[in-house]
Amino acid sequence: KICDRLNSSTIVLLPGLIDVHVHMREPGQTHKEDWYSGSAAALAGGITCVLAMPNTHPEIIDGDTLALALELAEQKAVCDFGHYLGASKSNAATLPSAAGNACGLKMYLNETFTTLMIANDVETWHEHFEHWPHDKPIVVHAECQSLAAILLLAHLYDRHVHVAHVARKAEIITIVKAKKRGINVTCEAAPHHLFMTQEDADRLGGRGQVRPCLVRAEDREALWANIEYIDCIATDHAPHTVSEKDSDRAPPGFPGLETSLALMLTMVKQGRLSLQDVVDKMCHNPRRIFNIPEQPDTHIEVDLDAEWEIPASPRHSKAQWSPFTGTKVSGLVRKVRLRGQVVYSDGQVLAEPGYGTNLFGQRAPRTSVVDSPSLPRQHHHAVSAG
Amino acid sequence: KICDRLNSSTIVLLPGLIDVHVHMREPGQTHKEDWYSGSAAALAGGITCVLAMPNTHPEIIDGDTLALALELAEQKAVCDFGHYLGASKSNAATLPSAAGNACGLKMYLNETFTTLMIANDVETWHEHFEHWPHDKPIVVHAECQSLAAILLLAHLYDRHVHVAHVARKAEIITIVKAKKRGINVTCEAAPHHLFMTQEDADRLGGRGQVRPCLVRAEDREALWANIEYIDCIATDHAPHTVSEKDSDRAPPGFPGLETSLALMLTMVKQGRLSLQDVVDKMCHNPRRIFNIPEQPDTHIEVDLDAEWEIPASPRHSKAQWSPFTGTKVSGLVRKVRLRGQVVYSDGQVLAEPGYGTNLFGQRAPRTSVVDSPSLPRQHHHAVSAG
Ligand SMILES: [Zn+2]
Ligand SMILES: [Zn+2]
Ligand SMILES: [Zn+2]
Ligand SMILES: [Zn+2]
Ligand SMILES: [Zn+2]
Ligand SMILES: [Zn+2]
Ligand SMILES: [Zn+2]
Ligand SMILES: [Zn+2]
Repeated sequence: KICDRLNSSTIVLLPGLIDVHVHMREPGQTHKEDWYSGSAAALAGGITCVLAMPNTHPEIIDGDTLALALELAEQKAVCDFGHYLGASKSNAATLPSAAGNACGLKMYLNETFTTLMIANDVETWHEHFEHWPHDKPIVVHAECQSLAAILLLAHLYDRHVHVAHVARKAEIITIVKAKKRGINVTCEAAPHHLFMTQEDADRLGGRGQVRPCLVRAEDREALWANIEYIDCIATDHAPHTVSEKDSDRAPPGFPGLETSLALMLTMVKQGRLSLQDVVDKMCHNPRRIFNIPEQPDTHIEVDLDAEWEIPASPRHSKAQWSPFTGTKVSGLVRKVRLRGQVVYSDGQVLAEPGYGTNLFGQRAPRTSVVDSPSLPRQHHHAVSAG
Repeated sequence: KICDRLNSSTIVLLPGLIDVHVHMREPGQTHKEDWYSGSAAALAGGITCVLAMPNTHPEIIDGDTLALALELAEQKAVCDFGHYLGASKSNAATLPSAAGNACGLKMYLNETFTTLMIANDVETWHEHFEHWPHDKPIVVHAECQSLAAILLLAHLYDRHVHVAHVARKAEIITIVKAKKRGINVTCEAAPHHLFMTQEDADRLGGRGQVRPCLVRAEDREALWANIEYIDCIATDHAPHTVSEKDSDRAPPGFPGLETSLALMLTMVKQGRLSLQDVVDKMCHNPRRIFNIPEQPDTHIEVDLDAEWEIPASPRHSKAQWSPFTGTKVSGLVRKVRLRGQVVYSDGQVLAEPGYGTNLFGQRAPRTSVVDSPSLPRQHHHAVSAG
C-alpha cells in the first residue's frame, strides 16, 4: 500500500512524539484495542508517549483501578505512557492520594462514550478544583457552554486547565480570548476536526460518529485561523471495531494514532504549517504542559517525501479502519528509537511488550543508554536531516 | 382577610421599592396580566419601579417592539418602570441602537417560558457581549453551568452581568467566588427560592412549576448562608391564570409582587435580616446596579406589626392565586407616594393609569413636587418611624 518515491527522499530526525489523548480500551474492551496493539499503532505514527484516558471498564477512578491499568500497560506497552484518573461525582476528596501515579485528571462535561459524566454538575466541579493537586493538569471534555463554564473555574481557582479536542469556532474564540485575558488554559485539536466536516460525517455514516461531532466548515476554518493558539495536536484515538462502527448503534470515536503525523506533515508540505509547528504541537508543548520527563535518546526518522494513501485498514490498531481512508498524505515514519533502543522499523515493532514505561510513576524509566556527559548526544529539539 | 393588630402598630417610612424582574405579559397575553393590573400589584407590594422582561408577544427585540411595549406601559402603568430588550440569535448588532430607551439586555440561557432562547449558543453570546453598550446591564437567566459560562464572558469582556433568580447552591457559590475574584457580577434571589423547596413544588402540583425549579433545602440554605452576597430581592413576578396553572400543561411562573415585601419583613421580625438589608436589597442596590434615576418624594408607609395571612387570591394581579397562600406574614403596605402623589392607600390604587413613567426614556419623568432646595425633604435613605 505504501508507494514511496525513492528518487527524492528527505529523511529528518524528529523527537519522539507525544499524544496526550488516547483510549487504549484496556482493561475491559480488548477486542477494540489493548495496550500492545494501541502502543504499536502509536510507534507506527511516530509517537513514543501516550497519555491514556480513564473511561475503560472498570473506569480508572481511584488508586486500585489506576494500579490495575498501569500493571496492564507495564506488561504490554511498547511505547511510554501516562494514565489519567477520571473525575466522578463522588471521588473528588479521595483522588489526590492516587494522583502521584497519574498524568492528570480527566473531567467529562458532555455526553460521550463513557459513564464518567459530570455534565452541568457545577457543585462537583468545584469539589474537584478544590481537591486535585495544583501541579497536575485537569483535562476537560467540554464543548460549547461547558467549556466557557469550566474556564471560569480555571480562573476562580487560578489553575491550569487543558481543553481536549477543540472543535468549534465558539470554542476556539473563547479559548483565544481566555488566553489573552491571562487565564491558564491550553488546548489540543484532533486531526479529524482540522480536516473534516459534517459532510464527511454524512458520507461516512456510522463510521462518521465522533464526539465532539464533525461540524461546519466554518468551525474547521476557525481552528486553522487560530492554529497558533492550539498548543497540541492529539489524536483522541478512540478505536471501535469495523462491525461496531457499521452497526445500527455505532459508538462515537475514530482511530488516529497511525495517521496523525502524516496528516500534519502534509500540511507542512502544503505550507500551512512549518515543521517546527508540528514538532512543537506534537512534542514540545505536550511535554511542557503535562510536565512529562524527557525520554533520553528518543527519536523518530521520518521520510518527508514518502507519499502514500491512507489504507482501508491501518496495520496495528485493532480498529482496522480509518476515517481518512483514501486520503493522500506525505511523510512516513521509518524508524523509532525509544530510550536508546530501536523499537520500530519500517512497519515492524521491534520492542518487547512491556518495554514501555509509566513516565509518571514512582519507578524510574529503564534506559539502555548510559547518560554520559562526554558522549555527544543528539538533542531532540534539533530538526536535522539524517 | 387582613387582620391587623391595631394595638401595636409600628409605621415606618421606606423608600419606594424597585423590582428588577417582572413579567407584565403585555403586549400579547393580557388575560394573564396587563400594565395596569401588574403595576397596581406592584404598588400593593410597596414597589414603585418595575423592570419588565421582554418575553411578551411579540417579543421585545428591537426598537419597534420596545416602542410598542413602552407605549402600552405609558398609557396604563400606575408605577414607574423600565423595560428590557431581549437577546436573540440575530439581533446583537442592531440592538444597541434601541438601548437608550431600555434598562438592560436580557439573555435567556436555559429553557423557560419564552422562545427567546440562546442556550449553549456561545458564538451568539460573544456577539452580544461585543455589541451591547458597556454602561447598560446584561441580565441573564443562567442556571448551573450556563451561569458559570456567562460569568466567564463577563470576565473576558470586563463587563457587568446581573444574574437573575439565583436558586442553587452551585450557583451562589460560583457567584461568591466570582465576586471575590473581582468579576463584575451582581445577582438577585426571588422570595420563592428563599422560602420554598421541591417539597412545596410537589405539594402545589402544576402551581408549583417555576423556572428555575424549586430545589433542595440545601440549596435554599446556601442562599441564606450567602445572603450578604445577594444584591437584590426580585420577584420574577410571572403571572399565569389559575386555570392555566391547574391545567395538564401548567406553564412555569409564580406571581409575587403583592407578597415579596411582607415575606422579607417577616424575616426581619424573625431576626434573619435587618430592615436596612431589606431596603438595600429591594431599593438601594437595584437603583445603583441598574442606574435607575432617583424618584423624588417617593416613599411607602409600612406597618411592620400588621400580621396577615397570604390569601388564596391577592387583590390586584390577574394571576388570582399565590404559591404562598396560607403563609402568615408581618408587614403591610399602607400608603405609597410616588413623585409627590399618593398613588396607593389601604388597598386602593389612587393613581390614574399612565401616571407611571419610563425611567430610562428620553422624556423626563413628570413630578408633582417642585424640587426646591429650601423645602426640607425626607430623603429616601432614612428609615424612620412615622
Ligand atoms: Zn471536598
Ligand atoms: Zn472527549
Ligand atoms: Zn477521548
Ligand atoms: Zn523538547
Ligand atoms: Zn457582530
Ligand atoms: Zn428566568
Ligand atoms: Zn423571569
Ligand atoms: Zn437610595
